[in-house]
Amino acid sequence: MPKLAIIGLGLIGGSIGLALKRAQLAGLEVAGYDVDGGAASRARKLGAIDIDARTATEAVEGAAIVVIATPISRVASVMEEIAPALGNDAIVTDTASTKREVMRWARELLPAAVSFVGGHPIAGKEQSSIDAADAELFRDRPWAVVATPHASERAVKTVENLILAVGAKPVLIDAEEHDSYLAAVSHLPLLASTALFTLAQQSQAWPELAALAGPGFRDVTRLASTNPDLSHDISLTNRANLVHWLDRYIEELRRYRRLLEDEAAPEELAKAFATAQTERDAFLVAPPERVEASAELGDTASAGQRMLNLLVGEYLTRRTKDMEQLMERRAAGDDDPRRKREGR
Amino acid sequence: MPKLAIIGLGLIGGSIGLALKRAQLAGLEVAGYDVDGGAASRARKLGAIDIDARTATEAVEGAAIVVIATPISRVASVMEEIAPALGNDAIVTDTASTKREVMRWARELLPAAVSFVGGHPIAGKEQSSIDAADAELFRDRPWAVVATPHASERAVKTVENLILAVGAKPVLIDAEEHDSYLAAVSHLPLLASTALFTLAQQSQAWPELAALAGPGFRDVTRLASTNPDLSHDISLTNRANLVHWLDRYIEELRRYRRLLEDEAAPEELAKAFATAQTERDAFLVAPPERVEASAELGDTASAGQRMLNLLVGEYLTRRTKDMEQLMERRAAGDDDPRRKREGR
Repeated sequence: MPKLAIIGLGLIGGSIGLALKRAQLAGLEVAGYDVDGGAASRARKLGAIDIDARTATEAVEGAAIVVIATPISRVASVMEEIAPALGNDAIVTDTASTKREVMRWARELLPAAVSFVGGHPIAGKEQSSIDAADAELFRDRPWAVVATPHASERAVKTVENLILAVGAKPVLIDAEEHDSYLAAVSHLPLLASTALFTLAQQSQAWPELAALAGPGFRDVTRLASTNPDLSHDISLTNRANLVHWLDRYIEELRRYRRLLEDEAAPEELAKAFATAQTERDAFLVAPPERVEASAELGDTASAGQRMLNLLVGEYLTRRTKDMEQLMERRAAGDDDPRRKREGR
Repeated sequence: MPKLAIIGLGLIGGSIGLALKRAQLAGLEVAGYDVDGGAASRARKLGAIDIDARTATEAVEGAAIVVIATPISRVASVMEEIAPALGNDAIVTDTASTKREVMRWARELLPAAVSFVGGHPIAGKEQSSIDAADAELFRDRPWAVVATPHASERAVKTVENLILAVGAKPVLIDAEEHDSYLAAVSHLPLLASTALFTLAQQSQAWPELAALAGPGFRDVTRLASTNPDLSHDISLTNRANLVHWLDRYIEELRRYRRLLEDEAAPEELAKAFATAQTERDAFLVAPPERVEASAELGDTASAGQRMLNLLVGEYLTRRTKDMEQLMERRAAGDDDPRRKREGR
């Protein structure tokens, strides 16, 4: 029976488990581990995982696919910890918000035979614990997939089907592109929102400002409520891109400042506001479409089964190969050191 | 019967009408006017107004209180237009998002005997037409009240009771303070949000960025969808404050840039994110309280009646005075030139 392991059972790890359960993949066993034992047992009670493992190593043993869903700052140490326990054909993926550093850690820390495929679900909530987990969290959301030449085609296809099975849309992307684009549409907004809130909150007039703040202020400063560890992890692992987009943003604000001060040409400012409104409304109604990997992958409904087929097919191929080797060795009077593990 | 006139029947004017209707103030007649005749007849069908006047002058004739709820760019011309038709004890208020210019226009354009009290409901939606009008739009929202020595105490009390009657909370404030504070919590967020959207949208990578944009990007850029005429009007009438806060925002972003680049002290950046989260969560749970005018005004439920009492009281006082004058003049063999108007 193919086994999937989730390391890190917060909002994201828990929601993956719940979405897989909802997909009702007969024959898939889901093991989970979290440094917080309470979170893991809660995940099992919610049905997000079948097995509440005592260690990360125990969770990944015999797993065909491993999802690392811890905070970014824990990803490298989890890779180090699980590396010795990973099977030769194991597929490993992750859910971290930045990808360049994670891809480097995978290259350096995971065994060469393991296929690592980077992942990043573009979904979330302000709450980050298992209690906020939601089987529908990923519904129709994009999920970035970073494939490298080190990952087998089967591994990429398996991860894409896993993403489809939980309801999201896989978007194949390069790690550098991912980090640059996400700096623009996620990490810069996080910083812009936080700086805007801090500016108002640290003003001497804050009691007056707060009394007059409306829903607009609340929305634009919403990301200031992001888990600060996540904000910090993102900043440290995507520093250069963030600085680049921050500089461009400051330039853009300076452009608006010039338009504001140019009393001679008020129509330029009017045009800027009008264009922004038109374009944003167009974006909300019909966001520009990328050619997505999912287009070639077939329908979403059977994605979970395709993932299982890929895993089971590989499992059977490997088992057959192992049996052949075993028989060859037996014929040669040899014992098989891998028998115990394969016998699970 | 006291008459209230609403000039401008968009989201705000229409919602004031609906909220007054909901308050069921027996004996209050609400007249309305909009340059768009369709909006006015729609307002009457929705029950936001009783009388659909053909001109602004007709709407304000005999009105004890006039609410100017047009776009800022129309406020001055409305004042000019209605000035000759206003009764001597009429109270005029408005709903514009900036107050310094509006107070100046009122001083210059309205008759000296008229009491002008500035107003600004801190409420709104992305839609701005009468079709989005909502009796609950102002529920528990702050509503800035700008009183000057030119306005009578009765006028200020009447406007405060009108605000309470539609469900909002009056906040007494000076015009300069209002414009400076609103620049910080409303107009700067508008500009920051618009600039952030424009930066992404005008990037060559926009199709890729849009495909990866999540709910955070949507929230933080929401104000880019503000009615561009409103954004422009605000910018033109609050330019100096907006430039001031824009400069402070750019400084704040530079501070975050320095924290990002300072690899030697990552804990400073971590602290900034942690403080922002803690303070914003505190703000959401319990915003700092200002001592509000409403505290002295009595309960909200009877505010509409108090407004009516103030208006009716004045009406009766004036009527008594007029009758006395009329009788004195009659006794002196004189005719009363004001009789026709008072006889309405």
